[in-house]
Amino acid sequence: MSRLPLYQQLAADLAQGIRSGAFQVGNRLPSVRALCMQRGISPATVFQAYAWLEDRGLVERRARSGFFVCPHLTLGTPVMMAATPTRRATPVAISELVFNLLGSTRDVDVVPMGSAFPAPQWFPFEDLARCGARAMRRLKPFKITGALTAGDLHLREQLRRRYALHGVQLSGDEPIITNGALEALNLCLQAVTRPGDVVVVESPTFYAALQTLERLHLKALEVKTDPVDGVDLDALAGLLKRHKVAACWFMPTLQNPLGALMSDDKKRALVRLLAQHEVPLIEDDVYAELHVGVRRPLPAKAFDKKGLVLHCASFSKCLAPGYRVGWAAAGRFSKDVARLKMMSSLSTSIPSQLAISEYLSEGMYDRHLRQLRRVLAAQQGEALALIRQHFPAGTRVTQPDGGYFLWVELPKSCDALTVYTQAMAQGISTAPGVLFSADHRFVHHLRLNVGHALDEKLRSAFATLGRLAAMSSSINCSK
Amino acid sequence: MSRLPLYQQLAADLAQGIRSGAFQVGNRLPSVRALCMQRGISPATVFQAYAWLEDRGLVERRARSGFFVCPHLTLGTPVMMAATPTRRATPVAISELVFNLLGSTRDVDVVPMGSAFPAPQWFPFEDLARCGARAMRRLKPFKITGALTAGDLHLREQLRRRYALHGVQLSGDEPIITNGALEALNLCLQAVTRPGDVVVVESPTFYAALQTLERLHLKALEVKTDPVDGVDLDALAGLLKRHKVAACWFMPTLQNPLGALMSDDKKRALVRLLAQHEVPLIEDDVYAELHVGVRRPLPAKAFDKKGLVLHCASFSKCLAPGYRVGWAAAGRFSKDVARLKMMSSLSTSIPSQLAISEYLSEGMYDRHLRQLRRVLAAQQGEALALIRQHFPAGTRVTQPDGGYFLWVELPKSCDALTVYTQAMAQGISTAPGVLFSADHRFVHHLRLNVGHALDEKLRSAFATLGRLAAMSSSINCSK
Repeated sequence: MSRLPLYQQLAADLAQGIRSGAFQVGNRLPSVRALCMQRGISPATVFQAYAWLEDRGLVERRARSGFFVCPHLTLGTPVMMAATPTRRATPVAISELVFNLLGSTRDVDVVPMGSAFPAPQWFPFEDLARCGARAMRRLKPFKITGALTAGDLHLREQLRRRYALHGVQLSGDEPIITNGALEALNLCLQAVTRPGDVVVVESPTFYAALQTLERLHLKALEVKTDPVDGVDLDALAGLLKRHKVAACWFMPTLQNPLGALMSDDKKRALVRLLAQHEVPLIEDDVYAELHVGVRRPLPAKAFDKKGLVLHCASFSKCLAPGYRVGWAAAGRFSKDVARLKMMSSLSTSIPSQLAISEYLSEGMYDRHLRQLRRVLAAQQGEALALIRQHFPAGTRVTQPDGGYFLWVELPKSCDALTVYTQAMAQGISTAPGVLFSADHRFVHHLRLNVGHALDEKLRSAFATLGRLAAMSSSINCSK
Repeated sequence: MSRLPLYQQLAADLAQGIRSGAFQVGNRLPSVRALCMQRGISPATVFQAYAWLEDRGLVERRARSGFFVCPHLTLGTPVMMAATPTRRATPVAISELVFNLLGSTRDVDVVPMGSAFPAPQWFPFEDLARCGARAMRRLKPFKITGALTAGDLHLREQLRRRYALHGVQLSGDEPIITNGALEALNLCLQAVTRPGDVVVVESPTFYAALQTLERLHLKALEVKTDPVDGVDLDALAGLLKRHKVAACWFMPTLQNPLGALMSDDKKRALVRLLAQHEVPLIEDDVYAELHVGVRRPLPAKAFDKKGLVLHCASFSKCLAPGYRVGWAAAGRFSKDVARLKMMSSLSTSIPSQLAISEYLSEGMYDRHLRQLRRVLAAQQGEALALIRQHFPAGTRVTQPDGGYFLWVELPKSCDALTVYTQAMAQGISTAPGVLFSADHRFVHHLRLNVGHALDEKLRSAFATLGRLAAMSSSINCSK
């Protein structure tokens, strides 16, 4: 920890104290004066540390009383065990299910706990529109075709700088701007596979990964994944020995749906293991900016020495949904990905790229992210409390260090698909667990989006879901 | 012709007279008074007819002298014969070539005759930026995620209306908004094929079609295509009997690179033939708005009764390059295409869609198109004259009824790839014929983009190309 600034060292220690339970929910944390004396640091440094913890939703300031541990950190629900997937590679046919289940979430009157996006109200659409208008007025027409395929030069440069600040050096070919991370992931996966190949995915995994595999006629091999620290590397090593694996598609940071976060050390070990087998890693990293822990986690890309990590991310979940601006930093496959991009959609919307590029130039992004993280962290806390209050005994739920998903494991007697269907009939969408596995396991699970403001309607939706879960249990028992 | 308005009937007759040679280049056309008397119509109707012909670059008005035939219509260069392709299906590997050859066209100092786009200066970027700014300011945040996948409702509605005005009824599922026509074509082709399938393409064909086939692991079967009226239906019928064909990918209107235009009757016959074999038609229709003939040609989609035509188009060549807004009206495959869209890029940029939607609402589009057609038609005429002046005897060139490409067939002794390479070294890009066929035929051919203002630099580039072509001939002869 010696290389962290002083305020971050303090923040890290306090956060650790909170996580370990040394400071309980509602406890008052040490005063500024006490910390100054204990650690021989200035009040400004202590305030900076508390501001940092506040930004991440870990503590709250009460006027004239000091800093207190926020309620959402201590739900104490036991963390579920990682599921053990079957060991054969499965052809994928998930899209029918996803299409039908998620088609319904577009209705604004539906409580959107099945949605993949946080509430639009958290995003700076007005600032983006203003930036877009200014950038488009300034645009030289001949630059329109000059930016074809790889993307706007200024935006790419800003992304490279942002990565560099976090200790990741991208090459001059990287990143390639895409229509959201989804296109980046599709192109990267296509660059390293042929129809019929086997791809390792997490268990559970993001349904869009399964859909991409389906579209490219690939087979999914699921690897055991811990809800807290992600892919089980021993299990992965076993799969790599027994199968000819063309690629892995993982989300090492705030995995969807689990919220699991691999430590930097574990990411390094993952990259090393895959390098031994010369297996490319498609790194889906769209939630990293929504992390609320002490140190910003590094992407697996940071540990890549052989150019085998194809890192994909976007602004869709953290800044500009609907703008469809993502990117791929595809290592040694950059040229192939650029070609596939040229062949499949030529290039990415100029108005979208320039609006975001201008917004980044203005230096507003980090402030926006701090606000967004704070909001989401507070909502996670409230949602966890509501689940504890309303869901049947034996329910387990994740407590991710960021993002806006909770992965809920209902008691074994409950049928999540029944809960999904009945909730939908009452105008509440959820994402049932069966979506997150090629062989439709996770029948007792729901992924809940808690990225929407917890108004009365949403609060009562938690009560309804809890009631439906309990009912589905008694129905099952009486069968 | 009886259902055309009076002014269009007159315009059609005059255009026919020009094309048949009854009115030669530079000839003065009948006076308004004469036509009023001859046909018993009002002066306003005659003026309307002449305005229509003027819009399409067929005639020009000279102050106090009347209307004259524009020079570009009477080059009289013989039209080349359609090439006869080999009859086997070929796996495609064109992308390396395209990538290398076209990578160079991005330099603004290069004379862009190899480019796929007209000059950016012809497009109303300022109006689009203004429309975009206004639409984004008005946008309700919750609409951002509501427009996911199929596209902005208002834009889709306007497209449906525009098609209806031209006699084509789209269904409620159509169109799906995509990242340019290229994504639409990719998705449509994927919806109707599996890896290894055979797809019929024109000969020569647009290289992006070959790239898409390559990306999807499909085989290309080329069909004889006439430079004037497109695909040879007898040849196609033969192929359909001998091969199991999964789909056809054709450009029935202003084919790239030939500029060929199938008549409405021929399109009807094409659709009927394919319906008999239950073979889907991917209709690439991106140049229709740049047609300068008398009657706007109908798309093949207009004759489709079985939902087998997957019609694709975009605004990239006629309104808003770089915005990446295209669409697919995919008939009975609409649902499949929507799913593939969801899986591969989720949805299309909202700022781009709203800017164009707003621009269309303001009713400026048709006026812009009239101006663009006039500019392009005038440039085609000048370019044809320059080719006649500078290129070696025996050169043949197409005279398409619109668009901005010329397909030049050099004398058999000339090597177009040599011309391409040497011209590139002198800062002039062209698109060599080998790009337009899976088996790299068309070695004597060049596609020239004449959609850029013919300034001194561009004029002298024609002279240089002619000289290089003549030199490549003497090199070949001396071998």
